[in-house]
Amino acid sequence: MTSILDTIDGPEQLRTLTIPQMELLAKEIRREIIEKVSVRGGHLAPNLGVVELTMALHYVFNTPNDLLVWDIGHQAYVHKLLTGRRERFHTIRQFGGLSGYLRRDESPYDTFGASHASTSISAALGMAAARDLQGERHKVIAVIGDGSLTGGMALEAINNAGSLKKNLIIVLNDNDKSISDNVGALSQHLSNVRRMQTTPSYRRLREMAKGSIERLPVVGDKAREAAGRAETSFKQFMMHSKSGAIFEELGLKFFGPFDGHDLNTMLDVFENVKMVDGPVIVQMVTKKGKGWEVAEGDSTTWHGPGAYDYKTGVIKKNAGDPPSYTEVFANTLVSIAEKNPKVVGITAAMEEGTGLKKLRQRFPERYFDVGIAEQHAVTFAGGLAVGGLTPVVAIYSTFMQRAIDQIIHDICVQNLHVVFAMDRAGLVGEDGQTQHGVFDIAFTRMIPGMKVMAPKDEEELRNMLYTAVALDGPVALRYPRGKGLGIPMTNDLHLLEVGKAELLSPDTIETAEQQDVAILAYGSMVAQAELAAKELADEGIHAAVVNARWAKPLDEDMILRLAQGTKHLVTIEDHVATGGFGSAVLELLEQRNIKDVEVTVIALPDKFVEHGALTILKELYGLSSAHIKDVVRAQLNAHTLAK
Amino acid sequence: MTSILDTIDGPEQLRTLTIPQMELLAKEIRREIIEKVSVRGGHLAPNLGVVELTMALHYVFNTPNDLLVWDIGHQAYVHKLLTGRRERFHTIRQFGGLSGYLRRDESPYDTFGASHASTSISAALGMAAARDLQGERHKVIAVIGDGSLTGGMALEAINNAGSLKKNLIIVLNDNDKSISDNVGALSQHLSNVRRMQTTPSYRRLREMAKGSIERLPVVGDKAREAAGRAETSFKQFMMHSKSGAIFEELGLKFFGPFDGHDLNTMLDVFENVKMVDGPVIVQMVTKKGKGWEVAEGDSTTWHGPGAYDYKTGVIKKNAGDPPSYTEVFANTLVSIAEKNPKVVGITAAMEEGTGLKKLRQRFPERYFDVGIAEQHAVTFAGGLAVGGLTPVVAIYSTFMQRAIDQIIHDICVQNLHVVFAMDRAGLVGEDGQTQHGVFDIAFTRMIPGMKVMAPKDEEELRNMLYTAVALDGPVALRYPRGKGLGIPMTNDLHLLEVGKAELLSPDTIETAEQQDVAILAYGSMVAQAELAAKELADEGIHAAVVNARWAKPLDEDMILRLAQGTKHLVTIEDHVATGGFGSAVLELLEQRNIKDVEVTVIALPDKFVEHGALTILKELYGLSSAHIKDVVRAQLNAHTLAK
Repeated sequence: MTSILDTIDGPEQLRTLTIPQMELLAKEIRREIIEKVSVRGGHLAPNLGVVELTMALHYVFNTPNDLLVWDIGHQAYVHKLLTGRRERFHTIRQFGGLSGYLRRDESPYDTFGASHASTSISAALGMAAARDLQGERHKVIAVIGDGSLTGGMALEAINNAGSLKKNLIIVLNDNDKSISDNVGALSQHLSNVRRMQTTPSYRRLREMAKGSIERLPVVGDKAREAAGRAETSFKQFMMHSKSGAIFEELGLKFFGPFDGHDLNTMLDVFENVKMVDGPVIVQMVTKKGKGWEVAEGDSTTWHGPGAYDYKTGVIKKNAGDPPSYTEVFANTLVSIAEKNPKVVGITAAMEEGTGLKKLRQRFPERYFDVGIAEQHAVTFAGGLAVGGLTPVVAIYSTFMQRAIDQIIHDICVQNLHVVFAMDRAGLVGEDGQTQHGVFDIAFTRMIPGMKVMAPKDEEELRNMLYTAVALDGPVALRYPRGKGLGIPMTNDLHLLEVGKAELLSPDTIETAEQQDVAILAYGSMVAQAELAAKELADEGIHAAVVNARWAKPLDEDMILRLAQGTKHLVTIEDHVATGGFGSAVLELLEQRNIKDVEVTVIALPDKFVEHGALTILKELYGLSSAHIKDVVRAQLNAHTLAK
Repeated sequence: MTSILDTIDGPEQLRTLTIPQMELLAKEIRREIIEKVSVRGGHLAPNLGVVELTMALHYVFNTPNDLLVWDIGHQAYVHKLLTGRRERFHTIRQFGGLSGYLRRDESPYDTFGASHASTSISAALGMAAARDLQGERHKVIAVIGDGSLTGGMALEAINNAGSLKKNLIIVLNDNDKSISDNVGALSQHLSNVRRMQTTPSYRRLREMAKGSIERLPVVGDKAREAAGRAETSFKQFMMHSKSGAIFEELGLKFFGPFDGHDLNTMLDVFENVKMVDGPVIVQMVTKKGKGWEVAEGDSTTWHGPGAYDYKTGVIKKNAGDPPSYTEVFANTLVSIAEKNPKVVGITAAMEEGTGLKKLRQRFPERYFDVGIAEQHAVTFAGGLAVGGLTPVVAIYSTFMQRAIDQIIHDICVQNLHVVFAMDRAGLVGEDGQTQHGVFDIAFTRMIPGMKVMAPKDEEELRNMLYTAVALDGPVALRYPRGKGLGIPMTNDLHLLEVGKAELLSPDTIETAEQQDVAILAYGSMVAQAELAAKELADEGIHAAVVNARWAKPLDEDMILRLAQGTKHLVTIEDHVATGGFGSAVLELLEQRNIKDVEVTVIALPDKFVEHGALTILKELYGLSSAHIKDVVRAQLNAHTLAK
């Protein structure tokens, strides 16, 4: 079944194969990926789309001496299989296993980590500049998808590449993902690769490689019709009848489009491109999900599915699971938008992930997908707010890191009413390191005028969104990845008071002040705090439990009363300790000159947390009721001992 | 002298003038700006360049009902003079006076605040979308410079504008700032405006305005030669013989170039553009410093000069002033680079402001100006680091906010050795609100693996830079705007120990532990702490003074010893309290379970600090020795009373 793949320890074996052998290998790789990913899910369609492209790159270029820089990195499974990680491939995205993305510490073939979009050209250009300064001669190749090119950072890099004139090969992995209408025309075009090889573009490439730099006109794809999506206009201009004209104007040489599933073509093209001087862009047309009919037919669903049956192509679903936070957010936003015509939604190329698709379906004109362009998304929202609307910007916590200056400079300085809905806040599990949303409390809380909150469950998320929309000024709302707690949902929406925490137990603040300790839990950590308190009660330890709700403004009154009453505070949050919710509590106590209180902050340590199942990570990093109990016991024992 | 300007209370008066009267008004405005700015300095050349453009915009468009959105905002002095702020114009950039930028709270004509680059198209597009959703019909006009177009965010916005198809007018204020070689060709071109008005571009505009959308070819400027600067390639492609082709491909209509100093032309062009459907870009060629020979001749020097004699055109200099932090940084970087061939420098279009010009002059091949592209700058540096070099990224603190995700995702996750030199950290004075660098401790400190430091004076800056370059992994170094303290400088460079603070007084830690209080000062606040301690000594209050040096890692040992010894800590920093240096100290005490210590954090409050002289602002916000003394006295009095 995998007779060739079994022989591949690295690109050196790949380079000994014939084309027919490589074609067989492509099939084996697809089978391997489809089977292994089926167990726990992962990025499927992007990887099936780059099987031949990845093989061709490692075949032609002398990796790892030549530096291959992937954008985003979720399409690197083939790359991993070809670079000595086949044995461990079944561990991908699991705790202690291979990363689902690229990591420099995982392999010398991973030259630059990636998982946020649009970084590859910048990184590759830096490597090329370093090479030239040091008189080295290896190749540097960036592989970037057409979607990633809508990120301003990639355009900044192309602009810079055009003026620096370094030898740099940019492979545009054009999977035409978002323009389904054009698949027909494209397929037809691609079926004529042999004809394409005699087009001036290809001839020009060969001539350049021979040292000729005669400027022949570029011939390329037919103009495509716009399809109304954010990527479209950029793609369109890129792919129009003078395909590549923009890159040529910017000082890069452009070749393509070529068939990104035809090994013959690609080996030939890359061999020639190697010899061209200066920055070059090569357009390779690939198909997401290629080689597996179900994934090819619906590459959006199969972009990153959960576990599935690889024989039937049916994704496994757990019937009866509670709705995800994302679903609750999306449904609530639609409900709110139905009653409030000023509400509009903005996504940065994540209509599925953020749930905003539901808003698009209900109110298409009040929905904006701006592309992978978080900076623009935020300032665009500022303009909408100035225009009298109430924009809800739905961007994952980790991607909101891209737009912090815009949040400061364009929203908060002007006190504009924009709601930031930060999904995937806290630990996200298998996506790991770069995707955990564990800095957002710090970076929103530091900004004057910002209100910062997090719900204890999916029902509270509804009321927080409702409150955020009803308030004025900037409001940031974070909520976790995954399913809700499964609590009963109401149809009611009500306002939460700004800066007021919820005392969960005991019933009154007066009683709470007399407890042994007060646990202040933020957002999704409330459930653990309640469980811990319940179990501590069995030990005779009495803990007040507070759903903090707001990291800014804090419920100063409640926190100070509990601090002074119990003399023992425990805070817990799924965020780094540095600058987080616990820090906010410490700052409050300092400002009010309360110093005889023992405070323990439970939060993530000062390290990048690895990937793995959420349950494992939470246990490991102490975001658990067991750890809360240990902390409380330690506080009280120390107190008893001190007496 | 200002007979026409005296009659202008707002655009409504402007709109009654004849062209000859407006030309006279342009002269009066230039004189007013040149005289008023001479007193304390400010942005001069950019404003002289847009006199006619600003008049034409307010003449043709029905401001403030039509929404005029300026990019960057440092060119808004003319706009302020024409919109009812002439009386207060002499107060510009002074405490309590007009802002040097745009502020929504200053005037209804300031539709969107600005001072960071590349935001205007995003904001304007948002306003246009809001208008259309609400069935309104006003015009929205963004005015953006050619330099700001190198920012990826502006390109994201253009991409989005092309697909949304809203009516939006983008005025490209092309002042050709960075291509001095081409001034000749451009001037020649511009002298033929009459001829240009009969070109197809102009005819097409008129025809479109009449409802015809016939696609005539665009004719424009002659191709310009590249000049090796970052802006060049983008400008070049934009200005090439098929001027505007890229914008047309992206779905915007392009018209120009037109003479941005010819009122006749501009009034005509804008009147016609008003009637064109969909997004439009109009290129207006202007000259920075226009109308004043000295500024026209050297628009870089006159971009934002200090006080000058407007009769002679001589900028006032205080001979014998100590060197600025910027100068010390730049000279030290060159010294280090002379001995260490791996060191390279990166600026985002600020070679003067950051001082990196000196590196360019000494080692042109080891200097990279990437354009107004902070995101790319950081990841490009990551690529250089992977390639074995040691990049020093010199970006002002406030602009580093643009690249926080890149610092996290591309540098710190991979633990790459990149030095972030953040000039203009802390309060910056007259530039105000958006330019103060008061968030960088929080946003660097929250990132795992980052080292964070700040020098007490210009001599220590030298050693910190030397240390940062010698270390491994990411290092962030902040230093203030303006002159150093004037201390004697050495030629010596030595390494500072990571995470070790400097005890300034008394001599030994054992003695320090016995003081009444310990003042932990960060960076530029050390001098105030020393002064306060000296004066407190006269009152019989004994304070240990620590130059903290590192906000991360903290000198835990010293801080804990002083905390436990003195029981009274005061921290001081020029940064918001939220998440800053003081918070780091509070977090340390919490982690080590030290609770019987009184800590007072002196830092900036949770608000955006206004503009004004640094001395005023520091006094007002308690960053002064007087305030330190008050805090210490209050701590000790409370302590005494408690006893």
